[in-house]
Amino acid sequence: MLPEVIEIREFLIIGHRALTSPDFSLNDLPGSAGRMDILCRCVNTALFLSHELRRDVRVHLLLLGEPAPPVLITFDGAAVKYLNPDERSAGSLIQKALTRGDGESTPGIFASKQRLAETIAGKNLIYLHEDGEDIRKAEIDENALFILGDHLGLTIEEERLLEKNRAKKLSVGPEKYHADHCIIIVNNELDRRGKWKLK
Amino acid sequence: MLPEVIEIREFLIIGHRALTSPDFSLNDLPGSAGRMDILCRCVNTALFLSHELRRDVRVHLLLLGEPAPPVLITFDGAAVKYLNPDERSAGSLIQKALTRGDGESTPGIFASKQRLAETIAGKNLIYLHEDGEDIRKAEIDENALFILGDHLGLTIEEERLLEKNRAKKLSVGPEKYHADHCIIIVNNELDRRGKWKLK
Repeated sequence: MLPEVIEIREFLIIGHRALTSPDFSLNDLPGSAGRMDILCRCVNTALFLSHELRRDVRVHLLLLGEPAPPVLITFDGAAVKYLNPDERSAGSLIQKALTRGDGESTPGIFASKQRLAETIAGKNLIYLHEDGEDIRKAEIDENALFILGDHLGLTIEEERLLEKNRAKKLSVGPEKYHADHCIIIVNNELDRRGKWKLK
Repeated sequence: MLPEVIEIREFLIIGHRALTSPDFSLNDLPGSAGRMDILCRCVNTALFLSHELRRDVRVHLLLLGEPAPPVLITFDGAAVKYLNPDERSAGSLIQKALTRGDGESTPGIFASKQRLAETIAGKNLIYLHEDGEDIRKAEIDENALFILGDHLGLTIEEERLLEKNRAKKLSVGPEKYHADHCIIIVNNELDRRGKWKLK
């Protein structure tokens, strides 16, 4: 299981059509794997610094596509290995996780049948959405879990579930950004608070 | 040739080992093409908004790898077509540009034998570097050209050339970020100045 860590930054990206079997081609992540390319880029932007990984970040990918949804795949920055920044690299590790099924497939990468409600239970939730409060002006709890949609956004049911769990809505800027781009802006804002705006 | 545009945001990424022939595999952009994957991700982060392209952005990729450096490939957001967000898509268009050689290969994508000195001549240069002034506090000229290195950074000669051309050094945050990640932070900062901090 995932180790207990005191302070951690978490991201959850919901892939509504992302395939839940390993039967896809790494040569066609957008088409053959239900826009898995989006999730692969999110893994990159959540975890990579120049020449090192963010060891205090966890990325959860909630795959809701055919044939066996849901599958939750977690990349734990503290333990992950064999990950390179290119899309195929993350795609290949996701494929291995789907082949292995429940448990740890490669170091730091875990799969389970968790649903959205279980994944968010008991967490400080932040829903990234263009109608939210400006992230630069917002208070952000430590150990927050940032939630993002894929190219389809979130469904009404998912939004209701977040609301019920008191998710705070934050916006990263005046444009509508891709999920992986939002993650960069969040990481940068939190980096600044930790290192440039010492309390 | 590239059309004249009044206000434009430009990025230049220097790929020191990026191949200057089309003889590489889209299945191995990092290995077979001299870290072309980095340049492909920079094209993505410079040009993509959710469900649209940034029409006021131009991305220049300066390829300095074997066998025939330099090759400058420009993606003009105002005219570019057939571009999807995944790495292979940008990689495939770069490959087409290298096959075609000088001129426009597909709409909005241009190749030429320009060198760094020619590309930066007469422009307001901003060199993104971790030792620079914080971008959030800096004055930024309109029509700036933001310059970034690949995984190798810039050479001493390149840095001297930028200095001679009065490049301003700006930093995007307290960590060392990948080039494509820096571009997101720049785009976000300029989006905010344009739309959220109206003068």
